[in-house]
Amino acid sequence: MSYDVELIRSDFPILDRRVGEYPLAYLDSANTSQKPQVVIDALVDHYERHNANVARAMHMLGAEASEAYEGGREKVAAFIGADRADEVVFTKNASEALNLAAHTLGATLKPGDEVVISVMEHHSNIVPWQLLCARTGATLRWFDITDDGRLDLAKAQAENLINDNTRIVSLTWVSNVLGTVNPIAEIAAQAHAVGAVMVVDGSQAVPQLSTPVPALGADLVAFTGHKMVGPTGIGALWGRYDLLAELPPFLGGGEMIEIVRMTGSTFAPPPYRFEAGTPPIAEAVALGVAADYLAELGMADVAAHERSITDYALTALKQVEGLRILGTTEIGPEGRGGAISFTLATPDGLDVHPHDVMTFLDSRGVAVRGGHHCARPLHERLGITASTRASFYLYTVEREIDQLVEALDYTRSFFGRVA
Amino acid sequence: MSYDVELIRSDFPILDRRVGEYPLAYLDSANTSQKPQVVIDALVDHYERHNANVARAMHMLGAEASEAYEGGREKVAAFIGADRADEVVFTKNASEALNLAAHTLGATLKPGDEVVISVMEHHSNIVPWQLLCARTGATLRWFDITDDGRLDLAKAQAENLINDNTRIVSLTWVSNVLGTVNPIAEIAAQAHAVGAVMVVDGSQAVPQLSTPVPALGADLVAFTGHKMVGPTGIGALWGRYDLLAELPPFLGGGEMIEIVRMTGSTFAPPPYRFEAGTPPIAEAVALGVAADYLAELGMADVAAHERSITDYALTALKQVEGLRILGTTEIGPEGRGGAISFTLATPDGLDVHPHDVMTFLDSRGVAVRGGHHCARPLHERLGITASTRASFYLYTVEREIDQLVEALDYTRSFFGRVA
Repeated sequence: MSYDVELIRSDFPILDRRVGEYPLAYLDSANTSQKPQVVIDALVDHYERHNANVARAMHMLGAEASEAYEGGREKVAAFIGADRADEVVFTKNASEALNLAAHTLGATLKPGDEVVISVMEHHSNIVPWQLLCARTGATLRWFDITDDGRLDLAKAQAENLINDNTRIVSLTWVSNVLGTVNPIAEIAAQAHAVGAVMVVDGSQAVPQLSTPVPALGADLVAFTGHKMVGPTGIGALWGRYDLLAELPPFLGGGEMIEIVRMTGSTFAPPPYRFEAGTPPIAEAVALGVAADYLAELGMADVAAHERSITDYALTALKQVEGLRILGTTEIGPEGRGGAISFTLATPDGLDVHPHDVMTFLDSRGVAVRGGHHCARPLHERLGITASTRASFYLYTVEREIDQLVEALDYTRSFFGRVA
Repeated sequence: MSYDVELIRSDFPILDRRVGEYPLAYLDSANTSQKPQVVIDALVDHYERHNANVARAMHMLGAEASEAYEGGREKVAAFIGADRADEVVFTKNASEALNLAAHTLGATLKPGDEVVISVMEHHSNIVPWQLLCARTGATLRWFDITDDGRLDLAKAQAENLINDNTRIVSLTWVSNVLGTVNPIAEIAAQAHAVGAVMVVDGSQAVPQLSTPVPALGADLVAFTGHKMVGPTGIGALWGRYDLLAELPPFLGGGEMIEIVRMTGSTFAPPPYRFEAGTPPIAEAVALGVAADYLAELGMADVAAHERSITDYALTALKQVEGLRILGTTEIGPEGRGGAISFTLATPDGLDVHPHDVMTFLDSRGVAVRGGHHCARPLHERLGITASTRASFYLYTVEREIDQLVEALDYTRSFFGRVA
């Protein structure tokens, strides 16, 4: 079956919305993706027919809900290419997954130990490590980037960034701002060579790449449901089972325990050890349906579409006067994520503030994000405070890119007149 | 408007389900509540029409989603009687809320400090404090209970349980096993007198009592959406604003920050400081609708119905031979939650295992919970390993209690014959 993007769009009710006289061009999928009807229907069916608590409720509804919840885990595991469903821990979002990693891996960190991240990380892969280092006295270090928005591997080597003191390396797989695809396998090998654990923020990668997560060479990979056509309220941490089995608990509560006594408790094996309390049940069921939806489209085809639409957008945006793309402007052999961030200058060379760009584009039906995209250090490194980001997904079509370009031309000419 | 429970039942699609030839009698609402159509519809409307990320997305959909998300917070705040919406922190469940309390209140605990809980707590209000004490060297102490399932206040006084070393007291408002309503205001006053912070697990109380949360005298109160006709994947921590404003962050990530630099970050004011990453957006919207639904029924009427159906059940269950109710068997002046746990003995005096009771009841359409109900220490204190629990909510009707009683009689006679 060929990839019929118009047919796919008909699965997404929200894409029919209009903004005044304009059709909606939703170019903010790196922020959150839209949901196909099957995912919405899965939530409805769960609540109307099968709702109960899981594991602890063994009556008819409880059995149905438990089976659906664990079925969601199995579908997600299959989707990411994991051998074992119990390597998938459900969290509330990718941030919780990364905090889980920081708290559990970091429980024994001490002064002198080093944690390595990069300057291109989303705040969710910076702040947990800063808090960890503050708690333990460990040192936070980071990869710088090159001018074209790639990890500066030469500088890292010169600085001996990954060394015998390194305990944890945590990097994004695909940059949410630059679209850069990082050489995770290479860096994971360096981390492992010094005995460090490799953590990956896969939030932007898992929804759009076809690489199986376990094949990445990392030990723990965080990702989130709402960016892969799933519901809000659920994320996941994939981990090598033997590593997960070694980690101490993080959140305490029901269902993560083995035996609770007032004088002390023992804990369940993964993934339950890390799923305290009533989990996001309906969300896991719907995320399973989302994973199946993506698998049925075929992730190779989804990735090819992402690449094609990103290529179309890069070409089109390069024609917009005054527009400067941050990071790589070509899809290299390593690929490129479907997010393009840029600045826009008036004919007089004055930058239009990204919030103004966003507002003007919005008035013409184009939804993009303006700001630092939860990556303030990256913007500071690039010498700017903010940018405008257009991001694409499996339902994005060329006419939406054309609508973006027209709206950018309009914005630029308007601010040119004002100036 | 009088409380028309049959009309209310028609709002809940799942209550029409049958178990074989029997109508479903869902008596497991302390485990999770069912959802009215308006809550399900709210999820559908959100995903079909308004889905976008919040705060960070300012285009049309982003504005709609942000307004709906914050609207959910305002509705929940109004429902619990909070003056300020920013006293409501959204979490993934009550367990996360209690872990948030333990991590942030406990950041400065040291050996010699004491944390006080009770033996009747749900695991979610035991394990986070055990983990905290293990991290900090603080001592965990607890209220015992009397034989009728109330906090043993006399013993606590004799033991000087709350004293100058006490830093935190954390108690359940209503027991999920015994239905006991604890004298929170009295104990909060004792805690405050020694400078301790009072934390409350309101998971079983907020859905069924009409007491405004801030009037309870506590400092932090955890509760959860799925037990108050809301969706899974969302809970909340209410806190006095000035206390929340003093607390350090817990999970790090996007949206909880003020300024992130690689060398250190500053944090947003509450509630955002505690809401790292993409929050449970659709869930907050639907929880707001759930809160409005409860408010429209009238929480005084909901509480009166709970009391009435619990009274009916207590009377009926006392007629079942061999059945022993754990804790109070009367609704006292302090009230009683709508959960009744019991053991069931055959005519020969042998206890039928609660899992068998649950299975037999299930075969006759009655959904109850069998086990330790995430309160193993309480069961150990009562000298048993498990019990069967029937629990009621705003849609429970007397014929379901009758169905329970008939199924219990059948179970007892069956196991009597087997024995």
